[in-house]
Amino acid sequence: MTIDTTRRGALATLGAAAATSILAPAAFAAAPIAGKQAAGVYRNRIGDMEITIVTDGARTMAMPDTFVRNVAKEEVGKALEASAMSAARMTVPYNPMLVNTGGKLVLVDTGNGQGDAKGEVGLLLPNMTAAGVDPKQVDIVVITHFHGDHILGLRMADGSLAFPNAEVKVPAAEYAFWMSDDNMAKAPDAMKGAFALVRRIFKDMGDRLTQYAMDKEVAPGMTPFATPGHTPGHTSLALQSGNSRMLLQGDVTNIPALFLRNPGWHVMFDMDAAKAEETRRRFYDRASADKVLVGGFHFPFPALGYVEKDGASNFRLVPVVWNTTL
Amino acid sequence: MTIDTTRRGALATLGAAAATSILAPAAFAAAPIAGKQAAGVYRNRIGDMEITIVTDGARTMAMPDTFVRNVAKEEVGKALEASAMSAARMTVPYNPMLVNTGGKLVLVDTGNGQGDAKGEVGLLLPNMTAAGVDPKQVDIVVITHFHGDHILGLRMADGSLAFPNAEVKVPAAEYAFWMSDDNMAKAPDAMKGAFALVRRIFKDMGDRLTQYAMDKEVAPGMTPFATPGHTPGHTSLALQSGNSRMLLQGDVTNIPALFLRNPGWHVMFDMDAAKAEETRRRFYDRASADKVLVGGFHFPFPALGYVEKDGASNFRLVPVVWNTTL
Repeated sequence: MTIDTTRRGALATLGAAAATSILAPAAFAAAPIAGKQAAGVYRNRIGDMEITIVTDGARTMAMPDTFVRNVAKEEVGKALEASAMSAARMTVPYNPMLVNTGGKLVLVDTGNGQGDAKGEVGLLLPNMTAAGVDPKQVDIVVITHFHGDHILGLRMADGSLAFPNAEVKVPAAEYAFWMSDDNMAKAPDAMKGAFALVRRIFKDMGDRLTQYAMDKEVAPGMTPFATPGHTPGHTSLALQSGNSRMLLQGDVTNIPALFLRNPGWHVMFDMDAAKAEETRRRFYDRASADKVLVGGFHFPFPALGYVEKDGASNFRLVPVVWNTTL
Repeated sequence: MTIDTTRRGALATLGAAAATSILAPAAFAAAPIAGKQAAGVYRNRIGDMEITIVTDGARTMAMPDTFVRNVAKEEVGKALEASAMSAARMTVPYNPMLVNTGGKLVLVDTGNGQGDAKGEVGLLLPNMTAAGVDPKQVDIVVITHFHGDHILGLRMADGSLAFPNAEVKVPAAEYAFWMSDDNMAKAPDAMKGAFALVRRIFKDMGDRLTQYAMDKEVAPGMTPFATPGHTPGHTSLALQSGNSRMLLQGDVTNIPALFLRNPGWHVMFDMDAAKAEETRRRFYDRASADKVLVGGFHFPFPALGYVEKDGASNFRLVPVVWNTTL
């Protein structure tokens, strides 16, 4: 059953007479309650490149007991509350980014695909439509790593390709890890599904799938660099056009209110926690020293900000001020 | 001359032969550069009310020498840089808000109207269209105070009413101050234009214009309360539906990076700086103690956040995390 939460709906149920007695003499607003969020689309210019953040949505969930492996749940809750977020129910956003290099339209990561019953995620395609982009126009999909929230969106619910004209470029080290039958056999049962998912998504891609190496452009002005730990082949991207630069971090951190403020905290999704922390500190030392714009897949939409040192070993994210012109 | 900044445009200028030699074998992106920002529209639910922030844009300008009257320009610049904003060129956003009470569609403040040659502001109407709202659907316009960026949008460039079916509700104290010929005569020359503007905007509104008193609803669930100092009759609004509340502050502060962090700083637009500071401290003491959501006309879009104490006498804004569902 679809629940009509508008007052108009409730009153229709009560009948016109009841409505009149309750509300008279107020008129109904001519404009109905929209009942859903506006499209999450935000553009930014880097030299001649146009970046479009197109959110796939956000999942709100009861905080897992071990969301941060090496910190007590209560302390994690306090950090969330300090950022005006709920300690009991946490929200994790997912933000794929389109890069129009002028020559190529490149999508970096693809979100959660079409399978979410609650409608919290899987918004990439409708939001791309709102942004005026047809999935057929995507020339290249660059994947940072093989977790489901980054690769599920490569396929529609029926298994067909969501971006039918796109090359799909994946990190060679990541592909090698997940496609190894040996690694799959050795993996704990809880991870077998992740291996199966990778095989299902990348199956039968043929020539359109290519593995990329570090430090060589995957598209004009877009250079991948290794940021391992979250997964074995996890990769970030440096964008450069003229004198303008930005970094797309992928999952160097999950939500910044926890892991950018506390880079020593280990999110449950980091496969090699020590290496992920080392990568994280190196990445943010560099990003804060260079004062370079950073895009983060799990940053709150529009998922762009600058990283600042906060004391000797912590950081904070200064979100961009929403530009209304480019 | 319009400058075509797309690579496609540049290559058309070079000619097809040159383009081939430079780029072959790369194809052009099917998707053109959008070249403008996406619509700034964000919704939030307060009980049965639906709030839609519809940005009017933002002005970027060289920082005036006396933007903060009682603080040196260099110190103001440092505060801007600490929030990843430019010290030389500051950006002031303008964010009118629509409130659909279920019974009435209410617009709070109207932005800068149609006269901006650069296209930085005057985006309220196109963004309302993007939000699926026709200006004819607005039942009530509530004005917080009579500065141009709040009232200019009441009229189109030709002088006609932008919201032709709306009642226009204005604070009685504000109306009394600006419509007083005595006050206009006494005002310094630099302020005469502001008096003339008020007269031009509110002229010939007849019965549709009403003056509202404090602490009595201007629409269901929307109660104004006095926050004087910025202007003599400056007003904020408390919204309540069920157990959910929020505050629309109007111009209790200009940009939060300066004046929420430093409530003792006096923006050049505050007409009675001492009273404005007293109002500001009282407002944020209350907002931080109550942990109530605050909407700020000059906060960065989506212009919603929570106010936290920062030491004994300063505050900081914790912006909401963008919700992708309602």
